[in-house]
Amino acid sequence: MDRPRHFTLRFSCPDRVGIVARVASFFAGHGGWILRSSQHSDEDSQRFFMRVEVRADSLDLDEAGLCEQFEPIGRDFDMDWQISDSAVKKRVVILVSKQMHCLYDLLERWQSRELDIEIPCVISNHDDARGLVEWHGLRYHHVPIDKDNKPEAWAEIERLFVEAGGETMVLARFMQILPAELCDRFPGRILNIHHSFLPSFVGAQPYLQAYQRGVKQVGATCHYVTPELDQGPIIDQDVTRVDHGDTVRDLVRYGKDIEKAVLARGLRHHLEDRVLISGRRTVVL
Amino acid sequence: MDRPRHFTLRFSCPDRVGIVARVASFFAGHGGWILRSSQHSDEDSQRFFMRVEVRADSLDLDEAGLCEQFEPIGRDFDMDWQISDSAVKKRVVILVSKQMHCLYDLLERWQSRELDIEIPCVISNHDDARGLVEWHGLRYHHVPIDKDNKPEAWAEIERLFVEAGGETMVLARFMQILPAELCDRFPGRILNIHHSFLPSFVGAQPYLQAYQRGVKQVGATCHYVTPELDQGPIIDQDVTRVDHGDTVRDLVRYGKDIEKAVLARGLRHHLEDRVLISGRRTVVL
Amino acid sequence: MDRPRHFTLRFSCPDRVGIVARVASFFAGHGGWILRSSQHSDEDSQRFFMRVEVRADSLDLDEAGLCEQFEPIGRDFDMDWQISDSAVKKRVVILVSKQMHCLYDLLERWQSRELDIEIPCVISNHDDARGLVEWHGLRYHHVPIDKDNKPEAWAEIERLFVEAGGETMVLARFMQILPAELCDRFPGRILNIHHSFLPSFVGAQPYLQAYQRGVKQVGATCHYVTPELDQGPIIDQDVTRVDHGDTVRDLVRYGKDIEKAVLARGLRHHLEDRVLISGRRTVVL
Amino acid sequence: MDRPRHFTLRFSCPDRVGIVARVASFFAGHGGWILRSSQHSDEDSQRFFMRVEVRADSLDLDEAGLCEQFEPIGRDFDMDWQISDSAVKKRVVILVSKQMHCLYDLLERWQSRELDIEIPCVISNHDDARGLVEWHGLRYHHVPIDKDNKPEAWAEIERLFVEAGGETMVLARFMQILPAELCDRFPGRILNIHHSFLPSFVGAQPYLQAYQRGVKQVGATCHYVTPELDQGPIIDQDVTRVDHGDTVRDLVRYGKDIEKAVLARGLRHHLEDRVLISGRRTVVL
Repeated sequence: MDRPRHFTLRFSCPDRVGIVARVASFFAGHGGWILRSSQHSDEDSQRFFMRVEVRADSLDLDEAGLCEQFEPIGRDFDMDWQISDSAVKKRVVILVSKQMHCLYDLLERWQSRELDIEIPCVISNHDDARGLVEWHGLRYHHVPIDKDNKPEAWAEIERLFVEAGGETMVLARFMQILPAELCDRFPGRILNIHHSFLPSFVGAQPYLQAYQRGVKQVGATCHYVTPELDQGPIIDQDVTRVDHGDTVRDLVRYGKDIEKAVLARGLRHHLEDRVLISGRRTVVL
Repeated sequence: MDRPRHFTLRFSCPDRVGIVARVASFFAGHGGWILRSSQHSDEDSQRFFMRVEVRADSLDLDEAGLCEQFEPIGRDFDMDWQISDSAVKKRVVILVSKQMHCLYDLLERWQSRELDIEIPCVISNHDDARGLVEWHGLRYHHVPIDKDNKPEAWAEIERLFVEAGGETMVLARFMQILPAELCDRFPGRILNIHHSFLPSFVGAQPYLQAYQRGVKQVGATCHYVTPELDQGPIIDQDVTRVDHGDTVRDLVRYGKDIEKAVLARGLRHHLEDRVLISGRRTVVL
Repeated sequence: MDRPRHFTLRFSCPDRVGIVARVASFFAGHGGWILRSSQHSDEDSQRFFMRVEVRADSLDLDEAGLCEQFEPIGRDFDMDWQISDSAVKKRVVILVSKQMHCLYDLLERWQSRELDIEIPCVISNHDDARGLVEWHGLRYHHVPIDKDNKPEAWAEIERLFVEAGGETMVLARFMQILPAELCDRFPGRILNIHHSFLPSFVGAQPYLQAYQRGVKQVGATCHYVTPELDQGPIIDQDVTRVDHGDTVRDLVRYGKDIEKAVLARGLRHHLEDRVLISGRRTVVL
Repeated sequence: MDRPRHFTLRFSCPDRVGIVARVASFFAGHGGWILRSSQHSDEDSQRFFMRVEVRADSLDLDEAGLCEQFEPIGRDFDMDWQISDSAVKKRVVILVSKQMHCLYDLLERWQSRELDIEIPCVISNHDDARGLVEWHGLRYHHVPIDKDNKPEAWAEIERLFVEAGGETMVLARFMQILPAELCDRFPGRILNIHHSFLPSFVGAQPYLQAYQRGVKQVGATCHYVTPELDQGPIIDQDVTRVDHGDTVRDLVRYGKDIEKAVLARGLRHHLEDRVLISGRRTVVL
């Protein structure tokens, strides 16, 4: 029932004739059985985006060989490319504050192996989630943040992330604004779930803003974190219907369900190497 | 299969104990068979909103008698109230520019009697829709608008609306901004369909804005028109999923379907006297 | 931020003139401040359904007094009525098998007090969920079920439910068919989440059935359990989009999110005394 | 703003290594600029499906040359393949009965060139829609059908379809069951919009069935017509939320909006040569 082990190539490059032919011929020449392939030509930027999954056991090359052999193609087409191996679990560090609905949700997906990842640690500015996290056999770091210790606290969080070998950082309702330098240091590797349908209601208390504006649907947005608050490329978003009878508290409650689902979907797309960034937009192949 | 003739009372007033008892006892005392009733207490404003449908043939009063008898209750509770008769068709004037998808949609609902209204005329700043409208046996007024004749053109539109006995004005993709005085003259009587999920992307070219921001859903909003552009109370809104492969042209196309559906739904709520305005919000009973 | 303590009256009775007047006058006479009220007239059955929330501190009666005073009205109108007190937590027993996504989801809602209930125990035909449940400080009963011990096992489950003072039984992906007698003994008190958009795909392996039929959306349904498998009155249901590229495994994964959300929504409606059964249908006030 | 003229190749064939390499190399060898390409490997049937759009002005071949040159590849891989030219409008014959909402909707899309097709004629078993159709400058054929003339009527409809050079037949709420032989004669060329979320509620009066079962969402399904009633491969489907207060008449009304949107979407996918049939399922590339 599990999917067979596969290598995933993804790249973007200036668009021109012959890219697919060259890539597909390369894989065919090494016996590569293509499981999935998708591509996108961006008309505005004239860039081409592609993602290919190839069965590992069909190739006459291992990952290192694959990278070595593909390198000239990458150079010829001026590609920004990566190859990943489905057998190597991604290392995801989760940051959480006091609200735990996204954390519970991610832990369930992890324990049921729906999300086949390593969680080297969970980091929080509060101690509330320690019991749950440690019960799951995971490490928990409490890094208090207040207005006087921000630089030190963020340095500590970054140190813990790096020390844990973290590849992806997930802000699972982490109610602190990241310093711009941290965002810049890990581009395309920090995901946030924002509790509104962006670009509506950036910043704090989006459900209160939504209530006051009288919208008839509220939503949530999973996006990459960039130095500009809530302006990063959107990976996924969704909404749910509300009405005049719903209080702010009700909106918060409905929102929790959307937040969980959208974060899980966005994270999964990210972990499957399906998301390529194109300026302020994402291409989800 | 048609619903029986009924009177619809709707009102809002300061909230207090005994409102429903008084209203329900009033109807019961006149033999009133209640078809539907709904209510809402707004915690912020401490106002109470209610809407009641009563079978006409169950009452021992006609509409005039009903209004006369109800008047003391309205006074006692400081109500803002109206009573309407389902047998009297509402008079709806449609304004349209060059895009006709909302117009086609409304005309179909009108001819099939899904919308049981009078359309005394259609007004446009172009002549494109004349044939279709006149084929349906409806009057068509072409009022050109350019940067030099705005005051005269708007005066003419208002004159035509009033002359036609228009109760509701529907901007069915009418690509002109209404003068503030006109908005103020007909509060709660002018509906617009805006081609974005407000408050995102106010103003012109919302689909281009949505494309550039890279959102994963686009939407439309039906709202009352107020002097502040795209800031009026929202009656209904909805969204549809898009992805990176969709061009601005595709977003426009998907949007058309949402616009039609949301405008029709919002208009229907309005015509059934279900929408009460509460500051910047609507209560849809 | 919490809602004020309130009593909730709900009833159904044959429809006639004067019901609302009598009920509303009763509450007004005792100073009752109505927080919410909704009603429904069913044209087919000619029955009337109503639900009213009244602030406890506005009344000159306690719950016992309220019941005593309301009794004559219930009798006069031949009502099937109940009154509940928001200060008394409902007792919900959860049944689960090996899949834990709905259990995690319910536990999170319980620990965050989104669901303000007592969970006197969790019962399972497997031992997998024991650790998680007991870590939350809740009792866990493992009642193995196999083809030879069904009557005894079900008798034990019923005994545990009754002993725990269970009011509502939630089948949170409990993969066993309930005996008809058990269903009959607790009408309107057992909720199931079925992993399809009923009435499509009753019985086992609905996602496989959905895959083979090639549907473009899969769903889940929360319903009351009755002796006829998957035929009970539907409380809520929802769907999500799938496409040709999704395997059965993908459908199962998407389905988990819908199951969690629909079960939580249906359960909440039930616990708020909003769901009244009308033949094979529900009225959700 | 219009998309550039392009040829669309689509095919299915037994899956094996090297298909994409061969196809992509073929196009690259002729200068072909690929606008869009998508593919699907079906694990169950071990078949491969692909669709490629190539800019016409980038190729050194015209359509005839393209077909001639591609023919050996099609043979080598045992492909079922077609090539179409975006400059050649598809010929779509619409069948309609008395309800006109889908017809209005299709006519609007046609007149605004959202659907860039030829409509050689509209055929109906009633005369109601004649005026609207003829006003649009289209031919209208009234072919009455009653229980005594079915074979002759259907023979006449088939004759009109063939005479008009119809490629696709759209049953836009055509309330008659097609004879099996007609379905077999035009496989994958007849589209129907069924007014339920199949496989729920096949046959007549699906909204009544939905009402009686008490579902909380109703839907519509666009599918290819096969001899088994409502069993053909599904192209698209969607749903909308309803509640206990909605009568059958309300469900019919909500359903109209879903029917229009789903039919338009399914038809568009079909006309863009995006839909490939795979047993009882469709692959929408």
